[in-house]
Amino acid sequence: MRGTMLYGPRDIRFEERPEPTIVKPTDAIIRLSATCICGSDLWPYRGIANFAELPTPMGHEYCGIVEEVGNEVSNIKPGQFVVGSFAASDNTCVICHDGYQSSCVQREFMSTAQAPILRVPLADGTLVATRDLPPKELIPSLLATSDVLGTGWFAADAANVKPGKTAVVVGDGAVGLLAVLSAKQMGAERIIAMSRHEARQKLAREFGATDIVTERGDEGIARIKEMTKGIGADSVLECVGTQESMMQAIRSTRAGGFVSYVGVPHGVQLDGTELFFAEVHLHGGPAPVRRYLPDLINLVLNEKFNPGKVFDLTLPLDQVAEGYRAMDERRAIKTLLRP
Amino acid sequence: MRGTMLYGPRDIRFEERPEPTIVKPTDAIIRLSATCICGSDLWPYRGIANFAELPTPMGHEYCGIVEEVGNEVSNIKPGQFVVGSFAASDNTCVICHDGYQSSCVQREFMSTAQAPILRVPLADGTLVATRDLPPKELIPSLLATSDVLGTGWFAADAANVKPGKTAVVVGDGAVGLLAVLSAKQMGAERIIAMSRHEARQKLAREFGATDIVTERGDEGIARIKEMTKGIGADSVLECVGTQESMMQAIRSTRAGGFVSYVGVPHGVQLDGTELFFAEVHLHGGPAPVRRYLPDLINLVLNEKFNPGKVFDLTLPLDQVAEGYRAMDERRAIKTLLRP
Repeated sequence: MRGTMLYGPRDIRFEERPEPTIVKPTDAIIRLSATCICGSDLWPYRGIANFAELPTPMGHEYCGIVEEVGNEVSNIKPGQFVVGSFAASDNTCVICHDGYQSSCVQREFMSTAQAPILRVPLADGTLVATRDLPPKELIPSLLATSDVLGTGWFAADAANVKPGKTAVVVGDGAVGLLAVLSAKQMGAERIIAMSRHEARQKLAREFGATDIVTERGDEGIARIKEMTKGIGADSVLECVGTQESMMQAIRSTRAGGFVSYVGVPHGVQLDGTELFFAEVHLHGGPAPVRRYLPDLINLVLNEKFNPGKVFDLTLPLDQVAEGYRAMDERRAIKTLLRP
Repeated sequence: MRGTMLYGPRDIRFEERPEPTIVKPTDAIIRLSATCICGSDLWPYRGIANFAELPTPMGHEYCGIVEEVGNEVSNIKPGQFVVGSFAASDNTCVICHDGYQSSCVQREFMSTAQAPILRVPLADGTLVATRDLPPKELIPSLLATSDVLGTGWFAADAANVKPGKTAVVVGDGAVGLLAVLSAKQMGAERIIAMSRHEARQKLAREFGATDIVTERGDEGIARIKEMTKGIGADSVLECVGTQESMMQAIRSTRAGGFVSYVGVPHGVQLDGTELFFAEVHLHGGPAPVRRYLPDLINLVLNEKFNPGKVFDLTLPLDQVAEGYRAMDERRAIKTLLRP
């Protein structure tokens, strides 16, 4: 088969790779119905995050049909349609039981999913199967649950979004847009999306944003304060991962309010004294998508929402390099790839 | 009257000061039954925190009898025994209503309480009166509610201490010791106090610590991991405010667990990437003591516990300089001062 490899900054190749096979008895092999490119893939693509070894395979979002399972896999069966998190987890350890499967004691980050066939470790813990094969038109939304929606959902949950409250979303990437959708589902009264990109503003409004703020940095913070009686928002969802976005989030939050952060931080340093006097709650990390997967899959299957709208570009998998370019240049919000 | 002034590093003077009077109609004047020296007073005493202007008055913990109130004060009356937080608050703004009185929109930090007479701003919001004059022997414990107990209580609350859970307390100062007491009251099953000071270990055990860990830094973290099946504690209460104690707290906490921090940070910088992958909840700040005061005062009056034990040195107020010396040299945990 052919799979996606990153050779260096902006050098993506779709090339011959060994077809995955069962390595451990807890593995499953799945044939992907769809995969996609993550905002976090752009960090190494741009050469900002360095890998110890290049070339490196890419991709961690996936859904598809089970082809084969190891002999210790008992819940997942060949022929089933499954979705899994970007972080494989046993779903039995004490950390998983607490709902933090993305920090499972056996966690393995997925990294070879931009390919037609994928080995999934800890299949029983990682994968969630649907009862029936889903209709084709729901595949994009089901794929979204694997990471980008699950991560947006975690952003809203970790920021304590509640009915009647005000939520601010910093970042208009795919995760930020689905954080808007998640905040809407959780009943936020007012959802302020911070975006200066017209197409993204439009989708944010479609997903439930009540207000758009185009200002950034100190001006953005001042605008949020103005809109919240001078005190800041109840919940602020940081969906970027830069120093500027993190400080914008913390400084836009009221004392006693909640800041979540789900974008992998790059060069972020927090000053203890500022954080102390801000008196916010801070919580984030790699989203425990597995915790939310069953509910999110049900919401998609029952057509309660349409997170798949975040894919505004669909390409055949062998054009993956163009998919990266389109996202890098902000021509596309998120690229879905069809094997 | 005479009051306490800091002139510079280790230069405390008890000297003639103007007697406080009502300045705003929302003020009260109280005659102190007792005051004390806070661990946070040691930062400027040691010259680590710089004040813009020296000399500066000192002290922010207090309880006593109301002498006079401004004409807009309606809940608090002369003759009542009152306790107030180290942060004056209106207790009516939206931040106060949310339980974050220490970040009240009208907040004023108290700073002249190491004196016989004190002006308290926003008296109706700041002070809590007892129904009757309390017995003398309860004065130390009532004084403790004003900051050191309230802060330890916030540490336990912000770290989500719950029945059956494991709590670790980093710091064996008075706040750390009362954080142990608070965790005990909140039902923690296992309370691990980190201390290498014999008298403090003893008091920690008396307050409810089930285990003592003497190691610090990486060794301390390794010890906590060993004691918690390799995953870290559910709740870690950081009661110091240094880089080392903060990192010790974060690294001793399980993924999905809770870190609180209540010691004013000095030179603390948090790395965003480490925090992200630690996946802990982080919450702290100046403790919203006013939120807890009514309950804590009742617990003291009903003799449910004895937080006043944390005062292991009692001096007449005019010996305040010796009180600072004893704490600076760790001869005393906390000094109570009698006007």
